[in-house]
Amino acid sequence: MSDWQAALARKAELRDRAGLRRELRPRPAAEPMVDLAGNDYLGLSRHPQVIAAASAALDAYGLGATGSRLVRGTTELHTELEQELAAWFGAADALVYSSGYLANLGVVRALVTPQTVLIADEHVHASLIDGCRLAGARTVTYRHADPDHLASLLGEHKKAVVLTESVFSVDGDLAPLRDLHNVAREQHALLLIDDAHGLGVVEDSTAGLAGADDVVITATLSKALGGAGGVVAGPSALVRHLIDTGRTFIFDTALPPAVAAGVRVAARLAITSPELRVELRSRSLYAHRRLADAGFRVRPAAASSDPASAPSARVSGPAGGIVSVEAPSAELAATWAAECRRTGVAVGCFRPPSTPDHVSRLRLTINVGVPRAAFEQALEKVVEAAP
Amino acid sequence: MSDWQAALARKAELRDRAGLRRELRPRPAAEPMVDLAGNDYLGLSRHPQVIAAASAALDAYGLGATGSRLVRGTTELHTELEQELAAWFGAADALVYSSGYLANLGVVRALVTPQTVLIADEHVHASLIDGCRLAGARTVTYRHADPDHLASLLGEHKKAVVLTESVFSVDGDLAPLRDLHNVAREQHALLLIDDAHGLGVVEDSTAGLAGADDVVITATLSKALGGAGGVVAGPSALVRHLIDTGRTFIFDTALPPAVAAGVRVAARLAITSPELRVELRSRSLYAHRRLADAGFRVRPAAASSDPASAPSARVSGPAGGIVSVEAPSAELAATWAAECRRTGVAVGCFRPPSTPDHVSRLRLTINVGVPRAAFEQALEKVVEAAP
Repeated sequence: MSDWQAALARKAELRDRAGLRRELRPRPAAEPMVDLAGNDYLGLSRHPQVIAAASAALDAYGLGATGSRLVRGTTELHTELEQELAAWFGAADALVYSSGYLANLGVVRALVTPQTVLIADEHVHASLIDGCRLAGARTVTYRHADPDHLASLLGEHKKAVVLTESVFSVDGDLAPLRDLHNVAREQHALLLIDDAHGLGVVEDSTAGLAGADDVVITATLSKALGGAGGVVAGPSALVRHLIDTGRTFIFDTALPPAVAAGVRVAARLAITSPELRVELRSRSLYAHRRLADAGFRVRPAAASSDPASAPSARVSGPAGGIVSVEAPSAELAATWAAECRRTGVAVGCFRPPSTPDHVSRLRLTINVGVPRAAFEQALEKVVEAAP
Repeated sequence: MSDWQAALARKAELRDRAGLRRELRPRPAAEPMVDLAGNDYLGLSRHPQVIAAASAALDAYGLGATGSRLVRGTTELHTELEQELAAWFGAADALVYSSGYLANLGVVRALVTPQTVLIADEHVHASLIDGCRLAGARTVTYRHADPDHLASLLGEHKKAVVLTESVFSVDGDLAPLRDLHNVAREQHALLLIDDAHGLGVVEDSTAGLAGADDVVITATLSKALGGAGGVVAGPSALVRHLIDTGRTFIFDTALPPAVAAGVRVAARLAITSPELRVELRSRSLYAHRRLADAGFRVRPAAASSDPASAPSARVSGPAGGIVSVEAPSAELAATWAAECRRTGVAVGCFRPPSTPDHVSRLRLTINVGVPRAAFEQALEKVVEAAP
């Protein structure tokens, strides 16, 4: 083994000792586990109409898009999907990327001018942080979900873009979007909202802001919509700019047509099936209460449980499909998750660097495609498996 | 329209005047155009066995992977694909990403330590350049495909990573990989080869270097393999490092299982069908000669045509599936491509910032799925359409 590989191996050993080793666990097609870990919130990835649409597109167009969006990769399915997503968001225009990561990298750069300062919630997703790095603009963070702190930082900077998620990915708490928007607007700043865990999960997760002329939305098509890819929704001038100059748009192979077709049907199902969101909310409230009753530290925090922490107290329990439970350590989080797996329950195990605060936790996500009884039994197993 | 949108619109106007406006052209399923533009080199995106495998995986797993690779996104199809790709490359290990762009962003960062200098061929792909930016390491470029210039730069730096493509994406010329490797090895530098346009197209496109302990390969699964996604192939310690720490791996939704299944079959077909590569090479030589005979400046340069330019003279004509023709200006490149389109031929139109040297050109790519007669007729139309 050469020097650089030996150096990597030494780092792996250190991670191992700190309980930070990660394992790929290939799952078979016949699912032996109850899903409390994925992002298929509405169960649409396996919906017969979604599969039928994807299958027809596979036959009609072939497997891949065969090129970048500007060369050969744009099919009628892509533009129809973009029009429908724009209409759903209430934005003027939308642009689909092959992943949400690339959408975020692209849009942050597009919003930056030489004077811009990026002001990000300290919990935003890795793709937005990398977007800030890649954009090369000065970046500062504001305290999680805290419009007052944001206001104080905005006062210092002339030209700013504020970055937040709608539903935060690790703990499932909602950002105070209207307050953030008011604060941003007062200082002529733009607001970029990553709606990855909100779209289709929370009714009007972008708080009616998608059409505002100082708001840009991004989202993934891989969570409630059950597919893959990402989208930027906003003013037409921005989308035009991304098509002409956005490197992660121009130099990337387009989303496979079959995925675009499937996601389009999933979006229609998500729009017309409020009952799926009602069931999802019922389950996340149930999970939140069950785990809190069992004595765990559960997030999002309920309104009354921690009056000292003002910003998160604005949210009472989970509004999205995520419930997160603190673990005593990274190692015990891994042990807990392994014990859940042993009893047939897949849960998310989040350890640094995947957590914003270095606290390890299990992340449970709701999939309404799982039968209710199996979901409730799985929760009991999570409780029993605690270290 | 608010100020920032007006500023974007003014920039769009400037691009418009410079002939740099880009248009999305949605194509229907029933293809009315002869493809001289896409990256489906071997025609595998529509191969019945590829479609059948993807279709079966769609039914078995659903549309999306439903999560990141470490949470729910790894299926047996992903790990089988990884094993087979590693074996094909001759590397110890391989890791599949949802796009080649994200694979490149991830691997560059993983190879950088605090002292590393990145030394890139001046023609490398946007994703590698963005990888350098994101890695935050000092980056210098060497003259295109010039091992001597690389050697002179390497002499100045202790710890370096050299970045090149195997087949360059804009002009289709081959990098002198063995020379580059020898130069890199002498100075204890690593060599990163992006094999996106070589894999499956050029027999042993990585010159037998994939198993070397100072070489890392990346590629896309969206070109000769007809699907989507990217791959990093290299030593196990590197793949282990990417799984544990790579942000664009950890925080991104996995490639859809159906795409992994289709690509896997495509890889097997590519391996076992040398006749497809023979036909591809026959067509690219034919196109190269026809266009040169018509008086155009064609690339890759033939060995004898330009003895002054030493490095590119090492390559005699196209070895891959790309032939590129210079256009007099960005605007005339667009006019030329539009006239081709009008006559039913899709060609790539490359203008700044998609060209490494500010020279606009048409890029023609070979798709052996197109009937030979239609291919030859299409070439005549390209010649006739010249401005």
